[in-house]
Amino acid sequence: MNTADNADFGLLSPASAGTAVSRLTSDYKFIQAMLDVELEWVRVLADAGYIDAGIPSAVAAASVAEQYDAASLAERAQGGGNPVIPLLADLRAQVKPGNPAAAAAIHKGATSQDILDSALLLMASRALQVITDDLKAASRSLAKLAEDHRGTVTVARTLTQHSLPSTFGLKAANWLAGVGQSGVQLSEAASRLPLQWGGAAGTMAALTSVADSRENNDGGALGLAARLAGRLGLADPVAPWQTNRLPVTALAAALADVLAAAGKVANDVLLLSRPEFGELSEPRAEGRGVSSAMPQKQNPVLSVLIRSAALAAPGYLAQVQAAAAGAIDERPDGSWHVEWQALRQLLRLAGGAAEHLAELAGGLVVHRDRMQQNLAITGPLVVSEKIMAAVAPLLDGGTPGSGKPKVQALVNDSLSGGAPFAEQLRRAVPEQDLPDAQLEALLDPANYLGQSDELINRITKHFAEWSQA
Amino acid sequence: MNTADNADFGLLSPASAGTAVSRLTSDYKFIQAMLDVELEWVRVLADAGYIDAGIPSAVAAASVAEQYDAASLAERAQGGGNPVIPLLADLRAQVKPGNPAAAAAIHKGATSQDILDSALLLMASRALQVITDDLKAASRSLAKLAEDHRGTVTVARTLTQHSLPSTFGLKAANWLAGVGQSGVQLSEAASRLPLQWGGAAGTMAALTSVADSRENNDGGALGLAARLAGRLGLADPVAPWQTNRLPVTALAAALADVLAAAGKVANDVLLLSRPEFGELSEPRAEGRGVSSAMPQKQNPVLSVLIRSAALAAPGYLAQVQAAAAGAIDERPDGSWHVEWQALRQLLRLAGGAAEHLAELAGGLVVHRDRMQQNLAITGPLVVSEKIMAAVAPLLDGGTPGSGKPKVQALVNDSLSGGAPFAEQLRRAVPEQDLPDAQLEALLDPANYLGQSDELINRITKHFAEWSQA
Amino acid sequence: MNTADNADFGLLSPASAGTAVSRLTSDYKFIQAMLDVELEWVRVLADAGYIDAGIPSAVAAASVAEQYDAASLAERAQGGGNPVIPLLADLRAQVKPGNPAAAAAIHKGATSQDILDSALLLMASRALQVITDDLKAASRSLAKLAEDHRGTVTVARTLTQHSLPSTFGLKAANWLAGVGQSGVQLSEAASRLPLQWGGAAGTMAALTSVADSRENNDGGALGLAARLAGRLGLADPVAPWQTNRLPVTALAAALADVLAAAGKVANDVLLLSRPEFGELSEPRAEGRGVSSAMPQKQNPVLSVLIRSAALAAPGYLAQVQAAAAGAIDERPDGSWHVEWQALRQLLRLAGGAAEHLAELAGGLVVHRDRMQQNLAITGPLVVSEKIMAAVAPLLDGGTPGSGKPKVQALVNDSLSGGAPFAEQLRRAVPEQDLPDAQLEALLDPANYLGQSDELINRITKHFAEWSQA
Amino acid sequence: MNTADNADFGLLSPASAGTAVSRLTSDYKFIQAMLDVELEWVRVLADAGYIDAGIPSAVAAASVAEQYDAASLAERAQGGGNPVIPLLADLRAQVKPGNPAAAAAIHKGATSQDILDSALLLMASRALQVITDDLKAASRSLAKLAEDHRGTVTVARTLTQHSLPSTFGLKAANWLAGVGQSGVQLSEAASRLPLQWGGAAGTMAALTSVADSRENNDGGALGLAARLAGRLGLADPVAPWQTNRLPVTALAAALADVLAAAGKVANDVLLLSRPEFGELSEPRAEGRGVSSAMPQKQNPVLSVLIRSAALAAPGYLAQVQAAAAGAIDERPDGSWHVEWQALRQLLRLAGGAAEHLAELAGGLVVHRDRMQQNLAITGPLVVSEKIMAAVAPLLDGGTPGSGKPKVQALVNDSLSGGAPFAEQLRRAVPEQDLPDAQLEALLDPANYLGQSDELINRITKHFAEWSQA
Repeated sequence: MNTADNADFGLLSPASAGTAVSRLTSDYKFIQAMLDVELEWVRVLADAGYIDAGIPSAVAAASVAEQYDAASLAERAQGGGNPVIPLLADLRAQVKPGNPAAAAAIHKGATSQDILDSALLLMASRALQVITDDLKAASRSLAKLAEDHRGTVTVARTLTQHSLPSTFGLKAANWLAGVGQSGVQLSEAASRLPLQWGGAAGTMAALTSVADSRENNDGGALGLAARLAGRLGLADPVAPWQTNRLPVTALAAALADVLAAAGKVANDVLLLSRPEFGELSEPRAEGRGVSSAMPQKQNPVLSVLIRSAALAAPGYLAQVQAAAAGAIDERPDGSWHVEWQALRQLLRLAGGAAEHLAELAGGLVVHRDRMQQNLAITGPLVVSEKIMAAVAPLLDGGTPGSGKPKVQALVNDSLSGGAPFAEQLRRAVPEQDLPDAQLEALLDPANYLGQSDELINRITKHFAEWSQA
Repeated sequence: MNTADNADFGLLSPASAGTAVSRLTSDYKFIQAMLDVELEWVRVLADAGYIDAGIPSAVAAASVAEQYDAASLAERAQGGGNPVIPLLADLRAQVKPGNPAAAAAIHKGATSQDILDSALLLMASRALQVITDDLKAASRSLAKLAEDHRGTVTVARTLTQHSLPSTFGLKAANWLAGVGQSGVQLSEAASRLPLQWGGAAGTMAALTSVADSRENNDGGALGLAARLAGRLGLADPVAPWQTNRLPVTALAAALADVLAAAGKVANDVLLLSRPEFGELSEPRAEGRGVSSAMPQKQNPVLSVLIRSAALAAPGYLAQVQAAAAGAIDERPDGSWHVEWQALRQLLRLAGGAAEHLAELAGGLVVHRDRMQQNLAITGPLVVSEKIMAAVAPLLDGGTPGSGKPKVQALVNDSLSGGAPFAEQLRRAVPEQDLPDAQLEALLDPANYLGQSDELINRITKHFAEWSQA
Repeated sequence: MNTADNADFGLLSPASAGTAVSRLTSDYKFIQAMLDVELEWVRVLADAGYIDAGIPSAVAAASVAEQYDAASLAERAQGGGNPVIPLLADLRAQVKPGNPAAAAAIHKGATSQDILDSALLLMASRALQVITDDLKAASRSLAKLAEDHRGTVTVARTLTQHSLPSTFGLKAANWLAGVGQSGVQLSEAASRLPLQWGGAAGTMAALTSVADSRENNDGGALGLAARLAGRLGLADPVAPWQTNRLPVTALAAALADVLAAAGKVANDVLLLSRPEFGELSEPRAEGRGVSSAMPQKQNPVLSVLIRSAALAAPGYLAQVQAAAAGAIDERPDGSWHVEWQALRQLLRLAGGAAEHLAELAGGLVVHRDRMQQNLAITGPLVVSEKIMAAVAPLLDGGTPGSGKPKVQALVNDSLSGGAPFAEQLRRAVPEQDLPDAQLEALLDPANYLGQSDELINRITKHFAEWSQA
Repeated sequence: MNTADNADFGLLSPASAGTAVSRLTSDYKFIQAMLDVELEWVRVLADAGYIDAGIPSAVAAASVAEQYDAASLAERAQGGGNPVIPLLADLRAQVKPGNPAAAAAIHKGATSQDILDSALLLMASRALQVITDDLKAASRSLAKLAEDHRGTVTVARTLTQHSLPSTFGLKAANWLAGVGQSGVQLSEAASRLPLQWGGAAGTMAALTSVADSRENNDGGALGLAARLAGRLGLADPVAPWQTNRLPVTALAAALADVLAAAGKVANDVLLLSRPEFGELSEPRAEGRGVSSAMPQKQNPVLSVLIRSAALAAPGYLAQVQAAAAGAIDERPDGSWHVEWQALRQLLRLAGGAAEHLAELAGGLVVHRDRMQQNLAITGPLVVSEKIMAAVAPLLDGGTPGSGKPKVQALVNDSLSGGAPFAEQLRRAVPEQDLPDAQLEALLDPANYLGQSDELINRITKHFAEWSQA
């Protein structure tokens, strides 16, 4: 059986399979990231004159992931507990015949954890670019939905029940508030991903031996590390963070928030596209949403996948947080290893959710008529809060507060099969106190939208610059 | 870039990469499990006379996972949200040219969830066999350690500090108590994994149409399902469990318990093989435990991998439990999908932990001398509980209870740099009350082992039959 | 500020506040459980003749929780990291003036962990009785709903969309399948809660000193422990389980399953009682479901509370599982302490969910008419699976399989605004192949219920005995 | 049984019981926070002229938590699913007799969620002040430890084994890197806690009716909300965040990071204060660390409690994240309720950990001699990385790279009982290549500390300003 038989292709991860981020985080892409870190380090050393200027090109020729056997690396990773050790052996073996000095120069002053942590965040930074772009696209679509549906009156629901009128525009704006906020956070997280460069024990001892051996203006070990960070597009940290794992928890938390924000949208779409609601439909695409058995079904698959991704996030976040809390010594005895897969899964799930969300938000079909019909289920009772405020004083007979139970009685009577609420009100309040036209206006949901417009303005404005960038 | 470039080979999962269970749970093995379910169902239908007797062999010829493209299936799985739909299309396409009737017979009366759930548990049952075998092997080794070290006195530690004398045999027996218990639970879980067979909505409607169309003694739809369960080695459930996910949480909990029990062993080995302890060493193997930078290091990699697996388990368990709690309708809109990867990861982590644990327990090196030395750090104070009970009454001058603070004073004095505890005791208690030989016996840790022997007996006996089977 | 000012009354835990289990698991009830363990142990020792026969009554007089100050105990618990140490001091101080020998006899041979673990499970066993009773009551109500609604046709929904017809009876039976299964599991878990009795290091050393000091037939230390287990109604374990925490994870998993099963019911009720569905209503009660602002609202509060409890469970389960995996030494340095609050919260949440579920299931209002109306949304398309099977062969013109796309075309045409499905079918199939009456029968959802009846039988029968006990 | 019997006093939460934050987050403190929100809102309305200027004082008189019955509120909270509704009723009942207009003015335009969310964050902001102060105190102590122990050579440990020499000063600085970072994050989180003010459906409809009814310069509904935020010391958000729960996940993540950082310190202290290590001791205090059975024990209780808090954090974080991902509609049907207890527990655990950490860091006892002794276990092999780099070229006989296996052979020989490493080196390398003095210097761990000093500088400088503030 060849190695592919032992590989995973995403068959059990439909939320992320086949997405751009999934491709950017494959085992081969991680090997490439490790090779990139080793190669850039050789370049830093060569630039600073510590090794021969011809070495980088020799290493570069061997720094192509496809030259290595991922399955073999994975199996051999068990020996030392991480994949850097076998990769390093293979890389040196590749380089050595043509350039022994280059083979000796690779990994100078570094430790496995330097490579692994830096490569993981390098891979993450590449994935974050795509995720952020998708979140921006989704945000622009949500902003457009918010604008387009400023005037689309719908019912707001709290604790599953109809509460007050609102607009679908505000609902879309609130989706944007979450999605946009998670995107801004992710952009910030992306800019803070730090290089790991501490050597075997976080003291940079081996590197110091090298860097101290010459007099130059490179800033010594820490200066060289800063140059490496610059080359890799990673941040230069205050100090190595081998057992201070907050850089990892911060990234995980930002990704989990992306999933929570996307999950909220999916939950709403799943509900509102049920046949009984009919207020929304997912965009259709060839072969999507089909059922193996029932020819009439059209499943809201984008939302299902987003929701499944969101449901998985808390468990991965818990793993990363537990790993950070379990750190000990100058390199932890097991908790470090937990982060790798958890972080990658969060990247993939956030990547899948963002990609699907961009498509969902971009093509969401809004059914104004069904929103109107559903609002009509509750009818004027949906503004009973307003009626209570406006009509109760008219019924209190001079005793403040005594009108409230009277209005409540009308509501109850109407709810339990009595005359419609509007009719009851008309009967209860003399027309001179509340003329017909005024009552009608009072009962119109479109007249009780509060700050819907202004909130749409505030939210869309808040994320406009970021989402256009 | 070919498909392998987008695949995972376990590079970021050293705890399970390269293990037998990892191989048994690859995407191709899952495809095989799905094909097996479809094939056995065709056999059930043919046996019962519902379809032509020649159909099973036509389907069997196409029921080889390697004939399919896992990467393509994974990508197409997004359309319907699960991999059954594209696999079914490919399987039918494979079968149809040679035998159109066979192509039509496949999947008769079934729904995607029937195949996916049953295949997942079928794959699980295959993996559980291996995990259980490893746990039994580990248990036998632990029982042997318990027997061999009945007389190896060591110090028991509570809240990190020396508490009382104990034996390493009892420690090994306590490891066995956890590992064995988790193994027995897993055996039980393995025997309860149920077939899923409910059709599109859990009513078996389509199957009922088929099974009702003929008169025979097959027990109808439910009888046919029972036959399928028998063929697959799965349990025949009371009813389809499409939205009653307790069969999944039960399996996940059993796997998490394996990891917790193995994790306890690893935690102890990691501690006791530290240079400052030196009480245990992991078995050595070529290329294991090496460091990329430090030639003198020998890392306890087996335990590190086991511990990392144990630390990841709670997050996966939380995912599975959240999925069960999130079920809705007759097939959930996202929570179902969360289970697949979480369950497979738990299988792999438990598989990795069990495989590594079997090796660890089988080759663990015990350093009696270092146990003796460490015990000597606390010296006779380690039996101060006993001294308190035996000596306090000799010092109470007739007032019960008044001797206790006197002994405590001797302990404190000894702890804060005063004369050794034994000497202080000798001075405090007249020899006629406590002859030298008796005092010496009192101070010997080997005389204060309580039920160590009997507990070893009880534990090893309790798991003997199971672990030998 | 008096101590109550620093106490919690459940204000932030509406899912469990005010329930019977909440009362059974208060801090004072836990103090009582600790006192009960200490008292029963004194009784065991007195019965076996190790201490004076008059001691138990002296201890009993001081074994009333209300005599102690929970707030003070909680604060002093920090010194040793657990509440047993200060309680023991207070208990002895209470007993000593009247009976110094009794004060000295208390806690003989025991350690803090013995008391705390045993008291926790004792408190749990008391709570489990109530939870199990509520689950049985809920199960009986669900069984009745299943019976009463065998013939109530409704639509089954998968991935949020209409799939096939089913019955509300089967839905209730499926709820029962989960709730009943979780109840049976909980009953089993209740019968397995083990006593903890190992002494300071799990060797029973101090107790062995006592029990060995006399010749009698009490079975020694282990025999005395068995007697204590019997008195407390706990199981007698193979060995102390101070660092083998699977008894705790097993209980936690059983409680989490109760919450998952109850959560599924709540999810469905929350959906089906939305105004747009209207298929179910929660039982009304004075003051329940009211809104602070909107007079017309009636919130499904029972289901909201159950759902909130179910959503919290995975996090607590993860804590307990992480605690088990973190065990080390002969008493863990922190992970032990994590279990206490997590386990109590799971008891309370399960208790709250079970109590609310019993009320919900007992009073659920079913609106057959709305089920009928909602089913009508999809109309005959809801049986398109059946039509596909029955009609496709009539349209294949002799080429097996070629009829299927033709039926699909009719479905699509009907979905996209063409003539109703029934009409299209009538036009497509010659009446001699499919007479009108037969077509009508084919299109009737009530004729496509598969094994609904038989599954209701199987499920209700399966849990009948348990739920009546 | 009186209400206190049903209350919790922290008996099962030793990590937080009795701490300042525990007191600041009691049920009564939460009632106070809710009252504060209602009162400040009345003040805003009065200031803006919407209600009578005398109303605030009438409400203020009733805004004292102790006037209310927490137990009763908790029980009645079940009716509506939150405690605001019964509190509001009691508050109005308190105010009404003396000032009916005041009773009517309370809660104007607000909804339960406005009060509950705002009160929760108000309570949080009060607790964060204390936690941040404790983290600053701990950071100052850690900085002092780092300074004091710049020259205290110790061994760095990776994967449990000795790796390279380092300093205890750097270890303390690395603790600071985590604790300080978590503190800075918490300060930022504290400044971002937003007011919730959206009315029944997040549209501010009722408030808009009020605010629109007069002409003034108050900025309307949003302007009034901004004033309220200012009065409460909360941030004024872009929009109400009723179903965008990222403000809650952000706070939870910041608290979990505090616990992770503190947990790392505790893990190290627990290890290094084991008798076999003896490198550190916790500060002693009366009654702390005692054992109920063993008079000689001194348990590192501060670290045990901190570690237990850290272990519980991931589960709570998972709850909060799952709640955010489960949001639906304009107020979620259960996930909202999950946040309350989880967030409070995180506050308490972080509060307990920070308080204990401040004491731990402030009084930690460092045993230089034991660090020296432990370093000596590995001896010169601890610098074998350096030897490898320095000596291998001397042994390569002109073939680069061929010296490395020769040094490794010396290491292996020394490890397996051969002559000491230093002696072997002396024999292998001619003195003219490596004079005695140079070899000795090479073997001195104090000469292989890399950037230890500079890293201490960087870390302490980075947090100096924040921790002094």
